[in-house]
Amino acid sequence: MRTELCDRFGIQYPIFVFTPSEKVAAAVSRAGGLGMLGCVRFNDADDLENVLQWMDENTDGKPYGVDIVMPAKVPAEGTAVDINKLIPQAHREFVDKTLADLGVPPLPVDEARSEGVLGWLHSVARSHVEVALKHPIKLIANALGSPPKDVIDQVHAAGVPVAALAGSAKHAQRHADNGVDIVIAQGHEAGGHTGEIASMVLVPEVVDALDGKAAVLAAGGIGTGRQVAAALALGAQGVWMGSAFLTAAEYDLGVRTEGGASVIQQALLAAGSGDTVRRRIYTGKPARLLKSRWTDAWDAEGAPEPLPMPLQNILVSEAHQRMSESTDPTTVAMPVGQIVGRMNEIRPVAEIIAELVSGFNEATKRLDGIREG
Amino acid sequence: MRTELCDRFGIQYPIFVFTPSEKVAAAVSRAGGLGMLGCVRFNDADDLENVLQWMDENTDGKPYGVDIVMPAKVPAEGTAVDINKLIPQAHREFVDKTLADLGVPPLPVDEARSEGVLGWLHSVARSHVEVALKHPIKLIANALGSPPKDVIDQVHAAGVPVAALAGSAKHAQRHADNGVDIVIAQGHEAGGHTGEIASMVLVPEVVDALDGKAAVLAAGGIGTGRQVAAALALGAQGVWMGSAFLTAAEYDLGVRTEGGASVIQQALLAAGSGDTVRRRIYTGKPARLLKSRWTDAWDAEGAPEPLPMPLQNILVSEAHQRMSESTDPTTVAMPVGQIVGRMNEIRPVAEIIAELVSGFNEATKRLDGIREG
Repeated sequence: MRTELCDRFGIQYPIFVFTPSEKVAAAVSRAGGLGMLGCVRFNDADDLENVLQWMDENTDGKPYGVDIVMPAKVPAEGTAVDINKLIPQAHREFVDKTLADLGVPPLPVDEARSEGVLGWLHSVARSHVEVALKHPIKLIANALGSPPKDVIDQVHAAGVPVAALAGSAKHAQRHADNGVDIVIAQGHEAGGHTGEIASMVLVPEVVDALDGKAAVLAAGGIGTGRQVAAALALGAQGVWMGSAFLTAAEYDLGVRTEGGASVIQQALLAAGSGDTVRRRIYTGKPARLLKSRWTDAWDAEGAPEPLPMPLQNILVSEAHQRMSESTDPTTVAMPVGQIVGRMNEIRPVAEIIAELVSGFNEATKRLDGIREG
Repeated sequence: MRTELCDRFGIQYPIFVFTPSEKVAAAVSRAGGLGMLGCVRFNDADDLENVLQWMDENTDGKPYGVDIVMPAKVPAEGTAVDINKLIPQAHREFVDKTLADLGVPPLPVDEARSEGVLGWLHSVARSHVEVALKHPIKLIANALGSPPKDVIDQVHAAGVPVAALAGSAKHAQRHADNGVDIVIAQGHEAGGHTGEIASMVLVPEVVDALDGKAAVLAAGGIGTGRQVAAALALGAQGVWMGSAFLTAAEYDLGVRTEGGASVIQQALLAAGSGDTVRRRIYTGKPARLLKSRWTDAWDAEGAPEPLPMPLQNILVSEAHQRMSESTDPTTVAMPVGQIVGRMNEIRPVAEIIAELVSGFNEATKRLDGIREG
């Protein structure tokens, strides 16, 4: 399985994998894809520096990249204290009451409270870029719009291309106009922030709109080699995956009771393709999440409307922390796509990648038979 | 482009096209696909009989089929007068006021008022089956669940296979258990009644769940040969299309001002892939519709909740009739999928089919190049 992107990035397969886990990212790169480490969890740039040093030592010299979150609309900068004043008391009370109703344990008194994804603040995301460019990264992707022009220029000056996610052909064109090199067409079925348009329609639309001005990766609904074949049939030059690697054996984030799958992985393994919802409750913008008792609570009558970005995430950040430390798989707040229905076992990254390649080969040979009749 | 279904149905391409227009259905069959005539608009079985006689004379002996609407849950039988009593007055007033606000002209005083889709009543749908089985039809599809067992038996006894739409693997399995021969996996992006799960995820899930117990057609998001290739890469044995043929040159339903496209076609040609909404306002169940000033009115603050099926369609049936007779393309109530963004010119059916085939061939050859590297 080889497209122009393989040569451009020095990778064996045009499989780009976003993951918050450096263990998974490194394993993807070693298996022939491009591991893209999510930086948003590193509020402190030194933590990112340490993890990228680990990446350099554990990728066998294979290429990797990083994923930052720089909303196109700059959220207010400022300390958590300033921003906290903008959150209505009724919202705080709803969150507290919901967690109590759901039986989510409080945090240990001496544990630091999460301040929400400060990684979204441009100051923090810029520090991620600074740190990442000191490492041999091959791609920087931005999850929420084009990065600011000076950041694109800075990254380009370092010889690194820039990728950005798009949920419509219009967004994709704007990215290309802004100098973005690779557009990730993210369909409605994807996990995390998504638009309305499903991959089957979105991918060829973005490919045609860009007309070669930027390469296109397909994201959303991809977890098997057949889906890779479909994405490339639609005109994408590669795939961008995330959800399917949350149940990789190497994924070591999150609480686990004893050995085996983490609590979040248990929840993902149990879910079907219909067990996701697309809601504003995670960040303030529509994002697809695993359906859980937490998402149900926000759907119940009397629940407040989610706040705008970035307030909503700050509102729920400690709640996310509490749920992620609990051992109850029914109360999780986890972005995941509809492909979760196919995530039914814990598998090593290399095995997932091998199936993507062999499944692609089988599917395309089957198509040959259909073409030749 | 040839799958097992081509032999089973005596068709050249595994392209099944649902259309309310006998002109389009016949042209599809003549062009090598299987034209599937929608019966729901025929409240009077004699009208269907006349149209099927026309089909027999205009399909050059090529196979065709019919599509009926038999909700799995039997709606109350009874006259429009009985059912009308169940519709709240406030809903009627909202519809009347909305049409006045939108400037939709009233019907001529002497014109018969639509009573809504009585075709959904089992008594009427059964009459469609009776009439259709007197013709050389090759397939009967049901849009809303498995037909009742005695109807499946009746159709099978006539040597005709049965197809049914499914929005989830669970529905698909139920259809197969009920004796349905072909399952149409209809993704979220499709026009008309759809579920939550997008084609990219739904199609392989249904294929795997059925494991050969029934053949699978992919529906939703298909309008080009690349999308046909994607659907077959996902494991479908054919495609089921609808929206893309609403802008066929042969489609002659609806009002047109002078020559050229009808009012509804004008609205479809102008729409992008983001210009659809999935709402309960058409029938009472979620259906994807063209976004219009009519759908906007139902989204506005103060609009009532749609009624359950079949009441909602009876409530809005005269409104649909008024809007479909108006010459304003901004007030239409038209089911259509996200593929509407690619419906940008009026083309003859044969040309659409030819592009699907050549686009499929090109896409699969491109995939060969990617596989061979």
